[in-house]
Amino acid sequence: MTAKQLKTIELSDMKNIALGGAFLGTGGGGDPYIGRLMAEEAIAKNGPVQVLDIEEFDDDALIIPVCMMGAPTVMLEKLPRGNEAIAALESLQNYLGKRADAIFCIEAGGLNSTIPIAVAAEMKLPIVDGDGMGRAFPELQMVSMTMGGVSACPMVMADEKGNSIVLNTVDNLSTEKFARVITVEMGGAGLIALYPMTGAEAKKSILRGSMSLINSIGRIIHSEQAANRNPAERLARDLNGIRLFEGRVLDVDRRTEGGFARGSCTIDGLGPDAGSQIKLDFQNEFLIAKTSDGTPRAITPDLICLLDLETGQPITTEQIRYGFRVIVFGLPCNPQWRSEHGLELVGPGYFGYELEYQPIEKLNPAKV
Amino acid sequence: MTAKQLKTIELSDMKNIALGGAFLGTGGGGDPYIGRLMAEEAIAKNGPVQVLDIEEFDDDALIIPVCMMGAPTVMLEKLPRGNEAIAALESLQNYLGKRADAIFCIEAGGLNSTIPIAVAAEMKLPIVDGDGMGRAFPELQMVSMTMGGVSACPMVMADEKGNSIVLNTVDNLSTEKFARVITVEMGGAGLIALYPMTGAEAKKSILRGSMSLINSIGRIIHSEQAANRNPAERLARDLNGIRLFEGRVLDVDRRTEGGFARGSCTIDGLGPDAGSQIKLDFQNEFLIAKTSDGTPRAITPDLICLLDLETGQPITTEQIRYGFRVIVFGLPCNPQWRSEHGLELVGPGYFGYELEYQPIEKLNPAKV
Repeated sequence: MTAKQLKTIELSDMKNIALGGAFLGTGGGGDPYIGRLMAEEAIAKNGPVQVLDIEEFDDDALIIPVCMMGAPTVMLEKLPRGNEAIAALESLQNYLGKRADAIFCIEAGGLNSTIPIAVAAEMKLPIVDGDGMGRAFPELQMVSMTMGGVSACPMVMADEKGNSIVLNTVDNLSTEKFARVITVEMGGAGLIALYPMTGAEAKKSILRGSMSLINSIGRIIHSEQAANRNPAERLARDLNGIRLFEGRVLDVDRRTEGGFARGSCTIDGLGPDAGSQIKLDFQNEFLIAKTSDGTPRAITPDLICLLDLETGQPITTEQIRYGFRVIVFGLPCNPQWRSEHGLELVGPGYFGYELEYQPIEKLNPAKV
Repeated sequence: MTAKQLKTIELSDMKNIALGGAFLGTGGGGDPYIGRLMAEEAIAKNGPVQVLDIEEFDDDALIIPVCMMGAPTVMLEKLPRGNEAIAALESLQNYLGKRADAIFCIEAGGLNSTIPIAVAAEMKLPIVDGDGMGRAFPELQMVSMTMGGVSACPMVMADEKGNSIVLNTVDNLSTEKFARVITVEMGGAGLIALYPMTGAEAKKSILRGSMSLINSIGRIIHSEQAANRNPAERLARDLNGIRLFEGRVLDVDRRTEGGFARGSCTIDGLGPDAGSQIKLDFQNEFLIAKTSDGTPRAITPDLICLLDLETGQPITTEQIRYGFRVIVFGLPCNPQWRSEHGLELVGPGYFGYELEYQPIEKLNPAKV
């Protein structure tokens, strides 16, 4: 799908962006409702946010991503007050001795596609049309910038109490490990500013057009919902997606552990899938979909999205409840993630699975 | 005891300082042997270190304490390479945009009285004749500077891999909590620079004369050892100390947990104490000494030191082994610790004991 290029984010765009972000968030990236409210409040106060292609920036421009880090289960109960993200950004700017020229979205997700918009509105800065994942992933080294050789550090973490921590680590995996234990000590979630990049670095390493894509996906879901159609059909067609399964949630096992929401949910088939089951494993985001006989149907880094069977509304991992009637929807990931370096960072082996990665379109040839 | 004022630290002073520091370290503060080697190497290379009373500094001088943080059990196996402490100091100086005018010792202890000397020699800076505890304590907010309203932050932590973290927290207890989980992630120990203070702040808040006292105690132990006398008698007389117990170590329970070495050891009486037992609880440092019927004999913040029964050599909590013949030696703490604020910070209640603090000289009237 070629998404229509987004030029500015107005108040009225936020419902689409929150929804499109939650869809690409593959179960993670935080609650879309809260993120939408935060961004709407900031836009109402400060006016629309300009969206710029990375080519419109000078090579020495300073681009700073901001987001929330932690278990989505915790984020729901520990709402950002709104100024922690600004505090993280300002503390990083002070540390660098430079002001940001643009804000950047590190991942797609309900909260993490919208917090950067709130910050951009508040700081009267443009936002870059791109992101670092093309979806959401649970760990902070899992970004295209790591593949592009950009350091996550200096990174700043801030919490609602006023604590602020600057990390300078030897590599991005170490940044994740230190930041994760600090997140736990912050009560399970914190606001962060990291991967400060020059325009030149960003041009080489980011995934492009993500804000436009998120917006287009949100528009599709809304317009199909308005026409009383389930958006899954049209999303499958426009995004080369696959309807993997439909059914009713039978069991959810979810625990907050080591700063992540980990667990799995089992879905009992309905309609065309009656008589079979599928199991989704997650660590903040969905990682693996397998049928009850152990056959993989989708493997990280390909996207696994859970949608309400009636409305097509994305369901995050912390929202899943017994009895929900759902569609399991799959999407091929950005081709960069299928490279050797990409799979080292986000493939099944990294998450402890012995499974070898196979592209979703090969696992489901009949459905493509 | 009025300690003779120490003016410079020569190579030949290090054996006394390492020993005196280990004695006041109350079982913690790190291994004296390693600390001595580090400081001796630095002095041999760079010459003696000047020791100055805090009154000799201007009110706007910058005083920076450096030390190792972590479980002593881990410090033994994860030796500092020597340059991590310098890295922590330099990173803090860069963050502040100012150079230190003097180095400071945060606590007494085998390693933590000697690392600052190594750093001072390396940086060609004087060291202040004082410390923040008058002994060792396990947590970093447990210093007289906290009572004096000095912030532990900005604080820098560095490890041997090259990771470096700057903390800015809302209070000193929060600094401890964040720093402790980072220490664990660093592998159990890290080098830190913290409590950057002006001369004026230091004059109001530090404990004075500690380097001179440490040196004098070390001299007493060495001279008594040289004369083949157990130093305990003379230490008791000169320091108003109390020989609480003598016996043989019967049992040691020690675990590294949450970044601390926690546990207890039981000592079976010998000589005048035959037929009774005493139990020492520790968290890096000794906290409580109790007889087998539960009667307290010494309670934090008073000092509990374990000495070899033959030689008077201080024994750290990570060195205690079954069969060691030992003297349990007690000392009244600095009077500041007996204030309401002092006991809140380091009294038995903070460590989870229901016991009320009672001064060691009241608990052992017959022995004073």
